[in-house]
Amino acid sequence: MNSFIRHIIVLSPTGTKKQIQFVEEKQEFNKFPTKTGRRSLSRSISQSSTDSYSSAASYTDSSDDETSPRDRTQVNSKGSSDFCVKSIKQAEFGRREIEIAEQDMSALISLRKRAQSEKPLAGAKIVGCTHITAQTAVLIETLTALGAQCRWTACNIYSTQNEVAAALSEAGVAVFAWKGESEDDFWWCIDRCVNTEGWQPNMILDDGGDLTHWMYKKYPNVFKKIRGIVEESVTGVHRLYQLSKAGKLCVPAMNVNDSVTKQKFDNLYCCRESILDGLKRTTDVMFGGKQVVVCGYGEVGKGCCAALKALGAIVYVTEIDPICALQACMDGFRVVKLNEVIRQVDVIITCTGNKNVVTRDQLDRMKNASIVCNMGHSNTEIDVASLRTPELTWERVRSQVDHVIWPDGKRIILLAEGRLLNLSCSTVPTFVLSITATTQALALIELYNAPEGRYKQDVYLLPKKMDEYVASLHLATFEAHLTELTDEQAKYLGLNKNGPFKPNYYRY
Amino acid sequence: MNSFIRHIIVLSPTGTKKQIQFVEEKQEFNKFPTKTGRRSLSRSISQSSTDSYSSAASYTDSSDDETSPRDRTQVNSKGSSDFCVKSIKQAEFGRREIEIAEQDMSALISLRKRAQSEKPLAGAKIVGCTHITAQTAVLIETLTALGAQCRWTACNIYSTQNEVAAALSEAGVAVFAWKGESEDDFWWCIDRCVNTEGWQPNMILDDGGDLTHWMYKKYPNVFKKIRGIVEESVTGVHRLYQLSKAGKLCVPAMNVNDSVTKQKFDNLYCCRESILDGLKRTTDVMFGGKQVVVCGYGEVGKGCCAALKALGAIVYVTEIDPICALQACMDGFRVVKLNEVIRQVDVIITCTGNKNVVTRDQLDRMKNASIVCNMGHSNTEIDVASLRTPELTWERVRSQVDHVIWPDGKRIILLAEGRLLNLSCSTVPTFVLSITATTQALALIELYNAPEGRYKQDVYLLPKKMDEYVASLHLATFEAHLTELTDEQAKYLGLNKNGPFKPNYYRY
Amino acid sequence: MNSFIRHIIVLSPTGTKKQIQFVEEKQEFNKFPTKTGRRSLSRSISQSSTDSYSSAASYTDSSDDETSPRDRTQVNSKGSSDFCVKSIKQAEFGRREIEIAEQDMSALISLRKRAQSEKPLAGAKIVGCTHITAQTAVLIETLTALGAQCRWTACNIYSTQNEVAAALSEAGVAVFAWKGESEDDFWWCIDRCVNTEGWQPNMILDDGGDLTHWMYKKYPNVFKKIRGIVEESVTGVHRLYQLSKAGKLCVPAMNVNDSVTKQKFDNLYCCRESILDGLKRTTDVMFGGKQVVVCGYGEVGKGCCAALKALGAIVYVTEIDPICALQACMDGFRVVKLNEVIRQVDVIITCTGNKNVVTRDQLDRMKNASIVCNMGHSNTEIDVASLRTPELTWERVRSQVDHVIWPDGKRIILLAEGRLLNLSCSTVPTFVLSITATTQALALIELYNAPEGRYKQDVYLLPKKMDEYVASLHLATFEAHLTELTDEQAKYLGLNKNGPFKPNYYRY
Amino acid sequence: MNSFIRHIIVLSPTGTKKQIQFVEEKQEFNKFPTKTGRRSLSRSISQSSTDSYSSAASYTDSSDDETSPRDRTQVNSKGSSDFCVKSIKQAEFGRREIEIAEQDMSALISLRKRAQSEKPLAGAKIVGCTHITAQTAVLIETLTALGAQCRWTACNIYSTQNEVAAALSEAGVAVFAWKGESEDDFWWCIDRCVNTEGWQPNMILDDGGDLTHWMYKKYPNVFKKIRGIVEESVTGVHRLYQLSKAGKLCVPAMNVNDSVTKQKFDNLYCCRESILDGLKRTTDVMFGGKQVVVCGYGEVGKGCCAALKALGAIVYVTEIDPICALQACMDGFRVVKLNEVIRQVDVIITCTGNKNVVTRDQLDRMKNASIVCNMGHSNTEIDVASLRTPELTWERVRSQVDHVIWPDGKRIILLAEGRLLNLSCSTVPTFVLSITATTQALALIELYNAPEGRYKQDVYLLPKKMDEYVASLHLATFEAHLTELTDEQAKYLGLNKNGPFKPNYYRY
Repeated sequence: MNSFIRHIIVLSPTGTKKQIQFVEEKQEFNKFPTKTGRRSLSRSISQSSTDSYSSAASYTDSSDDETSPRDRTQVNSKGSSDFCVKSIKQAEFGRREIEIAEQDMSALISLRKRAQSEKPLAGAKIVGCTHITAQTAVLIETLTALGAQCRWTACNIYSTQNEVAAALSEAGVAVFAWKGESEDDFWWCIDRCVNTEGWQPNMILDDGGDLTHWMYKKYPNVFKKIRGIVEESVTGVHRLYQLSKAGKLCVPAMNVNDSVTKQKFDNLYCCRESILDGLKRTTDVMFGGKQVVVCGYGEVGKGCCAALKALGAIVYVTEIDPICALQACMDGFRVVKLNEVIRQVDVIITCTGNKNVVTRDQLDRMKNASIVCNMGHSNTEIDVASLRTPELTWERVRSQVDHVIWPDGKRIILLAEGRLLNLSCSTVPTFVLSITATTQALALIELYNAPEGRYKQDVYLLPKKMDEYVASLHLATFEAHLTELTDEQAKYLGLNKNGPFKPNYYRY
Repeated sequence: MNSFIRHIIVLSPTGTKKQIQFVEEKQEFNKFPTKTGRRSLSRSISQSSTDSYSSAASYTDSSDDETSPRDRTQVNSKGSSDFCVKSIKQAEFGRREIEIAEQDMSALISLRKRAQSEKPLAGAKIVGCTHITAQTAVLIETLTALGAQCRWTACNIYSTQNEVAAALSEAGVAVFAWKGESEDDFWWCIDRCVNTEGWQPNMILDDGGDLTHWMYKKYPNVFKKIRGIVEESVTGVHRLYQLSKAGKLCVPAMNVNDSVTKQKFDNLYCCRESILDGLKRTTDVMFGGKQVVVCGYGEVGKGCCAALKALGAIVYVTEIDPICALQACMDGFRVVKLNEVIRQVDVIITCTGNKNVVTRDQLDRMKNASIVCNMGHSNTEIDVASLRTPELTWERVRSQVDHVIWPDGKRIILLAEGRLLNLSCSTVPTFVLSITATTQALALIELYNAPEGRYKQDVYLLPKKMDEYVASLHLATFEAHLTELTDEQAKYLGLNKNGPFKPNYYRY
Repeated sequence: MNSFIRHIIVLSPTGTKKQIQFVEEKQEFNKFPTKTGRRSLSRSISQSSTDSYSSAASYTDSSDDETSPRDRTQVNSKGSSDFCVKSIKQAEFGRREIEIAEQDMSALISLRKRAQSEKPLAGAKIVGCTHITAQTAVLIETLTALGAQCRWTACNIYSTQNEVAAALSEAGVAVFAWKGESEDDFWWCIDRCVNTEGWQPNMILDDGGDLTHWMYKKYPNVFKKIRGIVEESVTGVHRLYQLSKAGKLCVPAMNVNDSVTKQKFDNLYCCRESILDGLKRTTDVMFGGKQVVVCGYGEVGKGCCAALKALGAIVYVTEIDPICALQACMDGFRVVKLNEVIRQVDVIITCTGNKNVVTRDQLDRMKNASIVCNMGHSNTEIDVASLRTPELTWERVRSQVDHVIWPDGKRIILLAEGRLLNLSCSTVPTFVLSITATTQALALIELYNAPEGRYKQDVYLLPKKMDEYVASLHLATFEAHLTELTDEQAKYLGLNKNGPFKPNYYRY
Repeated sequence: MNSFIRHIIVLSPTGTKKQIQFVEEKQEFNKFPTKTGRRSLSRSISQSSTDSYSSAASYTDSSDDETSPRDRTQVNSKGSSDFCVKSIKQAEFGRREIEIAEQDMSALISLRKRAQSEKPLAGAKIVGCTHITAQTAVLIETLTALGAQCRWTACNIYSTQNEVAAALSEAGVAVFAWKGESEDDFWWCIDRCVNTEGWQPNMILDDGGDLTHWMYKKYPNVFKKIRGIVEESVTGVHRLYQLSKAGKLCVPAMNVNDSVTKQKFDNLYCCRESILDGLKRTTDVMFGGKQVVVCGYGEVGKGCCAALKALGAIVYVTEIDPICALQACMDGFRVVKLNEVIRQVDVIITCTGNKNVVTRDQLDRMKNASIVCNMGHSNTEIDVASLRTPELTWERVRSQVDHVIWPDGKRIILLAEGRLLNLSCSTVPTFVLSITATTQALALIELYNAPEGRYKQDVYLLPKKMDEYVASLHLATFEAHLTELTDEQAKYLGLNKNGPFKPNYYRY
């Protein structure tokens, strides 16, 4: 779910006129969220919301002090108060969380080691606005190790791991974030992050575009001097392209959402892993012999189909795009219209990025005890609203699991009320988060160190060679050994021995 | 884990000499638990212990009354007091649980319908000792619908779903069981079940052999008049074979543990599903590219290997049996000695039924952050005891997940302290429980109705035709349609059109 | 296809009354050929008939001399004439064939090495009747190396590789066989093999039972002194069981057809490999997206389904046995009646062992360009006879490929006229032949050396320990390393450290 | 192998100076053949060279007339002599071949039906230079049906199916081609095709660029008036880009080699099918348990790996590109340097597009009986030349199969002398040829009908919408049913209901 949409919904009556205009503007940006980027948000949120380790901690501390962090002064062990978190006392626990995350983010650790002597970010003053989790902490501390000064805030009012925020604050990062901020808190934190005496940011790392827009609107003079923006989310990227199209983007920006490593790994492989996990945790369903229809055969659909087929399910695919449909055929899936199989399937999974892919009329015709869930975009794919009618009874049987009961007793098992199953009911491997975090770090280094003129006031993709570098840093995890070209071979292929190895249009 | 072993450990000082002798005898029975049956227990326990729906309920009621159920008198709505459960007030909640279970146990429901008019169990007086879960409730109510009178007790002091016990009691079944019985309670419940005025059991349904042995020892005259015993667990079956060998089994018994449907489905398919689930729920591990060694390539190992390979893991196999090893080779797994790969693997899974398959010496050599778990027999496979030494630090990071930390900081992630991952950290599909429950019902019908002389005082496997019937009742779940032989074809094959279709030695 | 059935068809008018009675008797034996053994013959025949290396040679020599080998006298380089083959001049070429086969039969070679010093077959006089191929030559020369004297003949009038027969004759084995024998030649060769002056056989290795019956009928006094019979084929085994049942089997016999290694490997794995090969070689069909129905989900069907699904086909299964049907469901195949899918499938593959599984009526309803073939039993499964009607046109488009053309232009592509696709259109890996040959050698050693009384006049399965030994000899091919039990583990499991490792009823 | 390179080798001494210069120019073009297009040629050649149906025919006719077709005058049944083929008498046989191909090319047939009424190619005068096979005949007759006049010649001196050329000539297409042309014949045929009285071509369909260059060099004035060139091969495309870069391309050209449907289907899916086929036909190797190393994890490597893993092989991957390497890891393959596994693998398959990927030094270290083959580019990948040394013995054991024998007796099984296994030893599904042929037809229609100005004098990719149309025409084969967007959904996604459905950079 897009963080911004929620902000609108909970918008407090104290919002100034300016903010409201801003909101309208953003609504426009959100109109055509493209499919490819939609996972960026879900990953991080699901990570924070379902990690039992940290959430246990959060439970405890949520009750221990009801005063708003804004109304309290806290001091870390070095005497600094330049942060605002739930409780600095949780720092030690947060540190352990960060250490555990480091185990699966060895690419960042190795980046620290390789680049530390040259301090490629010396002088960089980075403001960041992301989910604040153990994984982002590893990123932030990597940036620091490479020479940067960082101030950080949360891109989502619910997703902060308080103990991690505390650990970062204790370590000297100026963090302004806690779990359960109000809308007003949200913008206050961003402002505190940007607007501080004697320190002016020169780099932005954003996830969703809220920080970027706040600076663009409120601090245009600071914004103009920024050397580069790195944006991860599809929404934020969309906003940047809009700005660029309107001729208003006065800073080079890097779109890390569309890098190959992120796209292919985040969508295909992550969904291959998480579809099984999400279904099992919520319903304990047996996969063997189940008839499943997967709506959409993009990367997300491909991942879901592969996993379910491998575990013995019989999978049908619906598609609007004949090329993807032909791939589904060759991969051994029958391509059907939803209505052809709606009466026989046990599970529907939507992965289209579209709206109303499953309608009330179709839900009416499903079998008793069918499972309905969404791995795609937002909560639009299944027409859940159509199920909120008087003749249907809703019964919450577990967290994230509703039985919707028809008058004749038929039950449909609806997961996460049609929101992303990923986001709500399973976790995302730290390894995948590591790929994105490493890409972000490299994008910051590239923008900060690029010779003048290499990047204009536009939105760029990371150079392919850097994509390849990100990938290479992650091979150690698998003890994979790359082959190197001989001079003769490089010459034969017309390639540099160190890459890039493929043309830009290569499809992988 | 074998329920009996725990009984010994907690044995109260009030145990009579007779009981102690009995215990020794049973220890002997346990000496050679065979591999094939070891899953029978785990399934049911894991089911009850991890079902979040019911355990939520159990949490609530555990605090509402601290008096032992033995010391309270409860009355159901029909005025009966012939039961002993935690709280009859939970009956309505339990009824809903049973109804949900019925949805996935359509085979039993259809058995009820097919056989109800003839009441094949009219006159049967069944004492049962099993895990008391929603699934067994569906079985018990099926037996009742077919004409039997039932009295029931629990085969495990922890596994009773209290609300289900209440619902059964409310419906008129004499249940004596609650979650958290003492050792003394356990035997008291069994006794109350068997020894009641004006009612004498003529059939036994047992899971583990405790009820059978209690009757054999304490009520030899009643025992002799039993028309048949149906036993599910490997331990119970082992005890029966011992009795038979010793010439002391005076009642025909049916071994449902070794029926084809139970063996192949329970081991191969269940493990294929639950290995992924168990690993994800405990560690959120990404499977893609992980190097995994699976010790043992029996049905359990086959299921684990297939699932992990399908999700992108690189799987090695260890085996002692050259035939299974050759199968592993042909299935695309490298067959190695554990020491060959111990330094490189990310995950070890034991499925051997053996002991000390993973030793301290090997654990010393594993990589940082490796996962170690057991899908096999009991908690003997990994030498967990060897890890309880002063130089190693244990850190409990989640329920069922320990980090064992070496002096140099290396961590091994140990799941469920080496007990069955299945039992502890994932669920088992109701569908599989349905197969076993249906087999039990048919075994009872067969023994109760068999003409004199068909079964002697021995242990029998269910006739193949009944195995086939159990399977056929489960095909509707998949909307599978069997082909029928024509008269000409049946004649050509020398088969009866209704089966059995295979010779007894057929391996499937 | 059963060799015997063909013999009846081509029975010459010179057959004596005795022979005719014999035939009738055998017809009775053939009445209930069980499914499990049907592959034994096909393997060897396909091997010889499709090996382009040798068949090239055979082509040449078939024209070089039209005189019957019976009418010519040949002498090998050592001066012996005790053989009858097509042309001793082909010996050198045959030797090279044998050497190539040896490369993939390292188990036999290693058996030679392990047992050669003790010569366990010293004194054994073996008459053999099998397909005569490079692979059997490796077996025969292994038996010789272990001390046996061998005389050999062919179990099939077409399957002899003439150059191999020559090489064996040159090496001193008394071989009586050539490709294209007449019925009369067939029995003459058997007789020459058995009935020779100054040499009396004491062991039989048979494939199909023809040699055994010839001796039983013609030389009862010699037959009685035989120490053991080793029989490979399902037909031969069936005949032995008949004899045994009738109390007429006066010699212990070993059924190697039903050994685990043969059954599981020959059926499951071989079919997994050969179904793709057979279809490609004949039709160049693309598998991706093809709708295929596989009739029968025994081991053969399982192998076919697994391979086709893996290559992207959509596979349906028909079954009569609910247990196999349930396995198909869990493995992810829809179980249907043939009529449900007959109009939509692109390929039908029969694997049932049954007759008329595909009828004319169904063939009438298939799509244009559908492929119809048989991987199961004989040529009975598809009702090919029903296609030989005037309104249908047959067009032979390739070897083994017919287009059957309906009046409206629809074409059905029929492979091998409904005979085994395996047998006719693909090859069988030498590795699998090696498993069977090794089993035969061990069975001969066991029977020849068994202490008196171990084997009575009955039909036996190879002891499980020997099955395991056969498997272990084949592990080297895969560089697989077995784990050995420690003393402590062996004791815990109640097993001997050297096996057997499983109970007899274990299903693998 | 590139047809042009062979032309150079066989270049006759009569080649004019002009031709020689031309050759040099082309050599330059060939210097950096990119990986992505290398399959275009192999497909068609393998098709013609291994189709047993037609090659049988070719065998026959090769002996029936030794006079060169150039020296004979033939007349078709309509009295025309405007063609030059082996023998017009084969027309009927060729017609049957074409009819069979039509069965698998229903997309072209349906294109004929959809577009026939409007005759989009009315007035088009197309000269074509492609492999002349039954499949191209279906394309040519489709072009004719859509209104075009066609003259055709062969792009390869060996690949013509003579009977197809005859059938086309009989039907009125001016074909100049036969199997076994000399180099001189080759250019004569091209010239006869282009240079005819009263007919001037306005469209070119080329495969390899020979026709295009002939016209460019010899008939510059005709060339300038061409409305469009459609080029299929990677070599031809490369030449066009060179011309364009040099500012000498005066005609718009369409690169159909890099269309999505061709790339993804031709490489990934075709190789998935043909690697198994090629290995089986040549070596009868058993896949189960084999250790295989695949060099290169592009689309070709991905297809090979997927198929081999599915059939039970243990697959290792080598890669130079870290992104592809990471994909291999996630897909479950160990990524190694070749030297790490060279001593243990049973099979090496090269798919890199590179040279000397397997060196003599590595071949020296391989196991006895290892198989070495190439699925990648040309014959450069394996250093075959290094094996032609005196100490090694070559033994041709089958067509396309050599045993290379080391002094110690070790044999390496080398397939197709290191040329493409695909090209030499297996077939390519007509379905895939249909995709390319349909793309060619649409490209011709697009270029011929495009409004002035849409295409400049440059090389273009087919518009994505046409890619999608090609795909949609092929869905009927699978009875796949596309879902259509509702108006509301199309608006929500910002898409036209008829596509294109994806951005240009979408990777599929």
